[in-house]
Amino acid sequence: MAIKPDVPRGFGDTEPIEALEIERIQEALREAYRTFGFMPLDTPSVEYREVLTGSESGIAGDNQIFTVANIDYRRAESVTGPDGKEGYVVPPELGLRFDLTVPLARYVAKHGRELTFPFKRYHIGKVWRGERPQEGRYREFIQCDVDTIANRELTPYDDAEALATANYAFEKLGITDHFFKVNNRRAVQELLRATVGEQADAAAVLRVLDKREKVGDEAVLEELKSEAGIDSAQAKTLLEHLDAGYEKGLSDEFDAAVDELNEYVEIAVALGVPRERITVDPSLARGLGYYTGNVVETFIEGAEGIGSVCSGGRFDNLTENFGSQRYPGTGLSIGLSRLQAALASKGAGTTATERPLDLYLGVFSPDQRTEAYKLLATLRAEGVSVVSDPTENRPKKVMRAADRSPCRYAVVIGENEVSSGKAKIKDLESGQETEVSLDELATRVRELRDAGAAS
Amino acid sequence: MAIKPDVPRGFGDTEPIEALEIERIQEALREAYRTFGFMPLDTPSVEYREVLTGSESGIAGDNQIFTVANIDYRRAESVTGPDGKEGYVVPPELGLRFDLTVPLARYVAKHGRELTFPFKRYHIGKVWRGERPQEGRYREFIQCDVDTIANRELTPYDDAEALATANYAFEKLGITDHFFKVNNRRAVQELLRATVGEQADAAAVLRVLDKREKVGDEAVLEELKSEAGIDSAQAKTLLEHLDAGYEKGLSDEFDAAVDELNEYVEIAVALGVPRERITVDPSLARGLGYYTGNVVETFIEGAEGIGSVCSGGRFDNLTENFGSQRYPGTGLSIGLSRLQAALASKGAGTTATERPLDLYLGVFSPDQRTEAYKLLATLRAEGVSVVSDPTENRPKKVMRAADRSPCRYAVVIGENEVSSGKAKIKDLESGQETEVSLDELATRVRELRDAGAAS
Repeated sequence: MAIKPDVPRGFGDTEPIEALEIERIQEALREAYRTFGFMPLDTPSVEYREVLTGSESGIAGDNQIFTVANIDYRRAESVTGPDGKEGYVVPPELGLRFDLTVPLARYVAKHGRELTFPFKRYHIGKVWRGERPQEGRYREFIQCDVDTIANRELTPYDDAEALATANYAFEKLGITDHFFKVNNRRAVQELLRATVGEQADAAAVLRVLDKREKVGDEAVLEELKSEAGIDSAQAKTLLEHLDAGYEKGLSDEFDAAVDELNEYVEIAVALGVPRERITVDPSLARGLGYYTGNVVETFIEGAEGIGSVCSGGRFDNLTENFGSQRYPGTGLSIGLSRLQAALASKGAGTTATERPLDLYLGVFSPDQRTEAYKLLATLRAEGVSVVSDPTENRPKKVMRAADRSPCRYAVVIGENEVSSGKAKIKDLESGQETEVSLDELATRVRELRDAGAAS
Repeated sequence: MAIKPDVPRGFGDTEPIEALEIERIQEALREAYRTFGFMPLDTPSVEYREVLTGSESGIAGDNQIFTVANIDYRRAESVTGPDGKEGYVVPPELGLRFDLTVPLARYVAKHGRELTFPFKRYHIGKVWRGERPQEGRYREFIQCDVDTIANRELTPYDDAEALATANYAFEKLGITDHFFKVNNRRAVQELLRATVGEQADAAAVLRVLDKREKVGDEAVLEELKSEAGIDSAQAKTLLEHLDAGYEKGLSDEFDAAVDELNEYVEIAVALGVPRERITVDPSLARGLGYYTGNVVETFIEGAEGIGSVCSGGRFDNLTENFGSQRYPGTGLSIGLSRLQAALASKGAGTTATERPLDLYLGVFSPDQRTEAYKLLATLRAEGVSVVSDPTENRPKKVMRAADRSPCRYAVVIGENEVSSGKAKIKDLESGQETEVSLDELATRVRELRDAGAAS
């Protein structure tokens, strides 16, 4: 019986034009990461489940991890599970990684003694999450992480380097309308302690504050009471302090945290991040459970609804699950799909094109095939990308193949072109034609291409 | 209890220097593939198991496929399997891909109606096989495939394009001592039919012939008798024909297959492959079960023992498991680990270096930090890759950090350097020092780097 050629729910194919754009983005990120002194590290897609589940990372539940097993189906007998499901017994040993931070922690715990610190690595790779599939949410996606790990205390300089790296990467991608929201987890904690007291459920308070812009102060005061048991007077003090930004003087601990945050911003600016792109946002709350110091989220103007395209911060207890010595870390992760979505929603900052390759070379009759092979060899030796099908010689089919190819220009050679040594280059986007000598074809296509890329 | 930071058997971390070299190779391959008119396609790592198992590919057994399941461990009860193993019940629905050809077949069967043919795609990605782990054999590895799929018959031109692509890619990687062994499956079949008859077990005959160089003609004649029941006279005729290469005249079918093979070689040469790098090898037998026409294997001179670093050929029934219309394909796959191993075994053709980044910038006291930030911003804006740790100011530690960094050059700034505007660049490989003005630091490092890369 024929097998259905489907992909599992939550997984998808990435079509050529989009796949090429993803390659371009990844290459720009790698270059930016290296420029900032990070080196690549690759870890396996498959880790021991206990390595994955032992972490207190942002992932919601154990059931989001895909289990991996190598079963000999020829030998295994099928069994029926408690829920009546037929299947095979797998020991719960292996799983697919759900982020790139847990594998980094495992790597550092394993190799810490041999590494040179600060250990600066980037990692661009796929991760898998067994989330309920829904619109725009995939079970397999690409993360682009950059982290600095130390065997002593990290400083705001290390946090700022990560921020400057992300800014540099965005600029290299032609993005200039991104902005960073930064905060400091300890500053938030100390602010809450000083205004609403130790007993308050910080997570609940932050959840409510997160909605402030949407629902307004009245509703927030109400919810702070009902959700977090904070009386109205305390809640008002809290909101006032938030509105005043991080004015120092609440406590020594608070002031130290605010200094750490300010230093972070100042050094990032010194390292090249335009000051106007950084906003201190005391209500920035997401992911605070995981981080221990400065944190950042990144948005694209006009595409804020898509969410943060680059998030990160300081985590001082990277390897604690492995019982190894303490290794603090700081870094961030660019979400490739979100970044793409943000760029696409604006129709800007991207060079994605339907015609990314250079030239379609058509051939009108079998007599010109030898000439075509020669041209192909020359063009490619000069770095021109060419699609050709010298075995297709029906004029209509040749023109249609050129038009449907991913090439920007087309040249078709027949008897006349070969004898005169001249042919017409057609711009498949504008329809414009230019005559060119076949001897100069490679040079001419490169000129046209480079002029097009520059405009 | 602390979790052990181990990786599962058969999986491994790829350390920074090696990971960078792999990135470099992949980028060169992508560029070569695009130059030959191929576009990237990405498919999910996870496919339905029936898509994976339905194929008659080169993979030995069903048990080599890793099963993937998303289990809610909080709800699932554990069961005991027939073999006494404790675990969970997984329905055998999903698996990790074991090559990139089966997903391509699934993609073409699914999207055939919307695609433009010939469909030329490349795919560089990880694949997983549950093989018994052993020295140099990993359960996760990278394949770099390039294939042309048609909705009509393919021609030797399409086979030759793949060969020319691989040759171009190797040259771009600085490899010039590779050679291609080519053969044609139908030619072999017809030769056997004409010499040892229809009834002979072709697979058994080829297995014996494969050992000819090693064991000699006497042993081969014996084994052809004992293993394949071929009498000595027939076997001698076969060996004579092999020694004569593919001399035409055996049968019309044989002659047609030999023409197809010769055309393959001639067009590849016309497309730029040096003729001396191609050898027709009638005894090239591997993978013939899968292919239907011209086939190729590729070796590196002096590293033949590592095996073929690039194999492929024509497969005329790509999508037959999916009951869709017939789509013939031709292409090849470069095995990245093998290629690396071959290059490494020769210590040549690679630019892997222990110092791939440009500059370590050291800072002798906190007073020079601001100057350091400024230098960092300038250097990176000019594309110089820099590692720095301005918070480390103890001279001994700074020098040691520079030395252990992945950078080729080092500059350390202190009070004198900042006031004089001059510093010394140290080549960390040769130990040589050159004085430079801090204003020209970026330019000077780039000059040194480019001179080093050129030499």
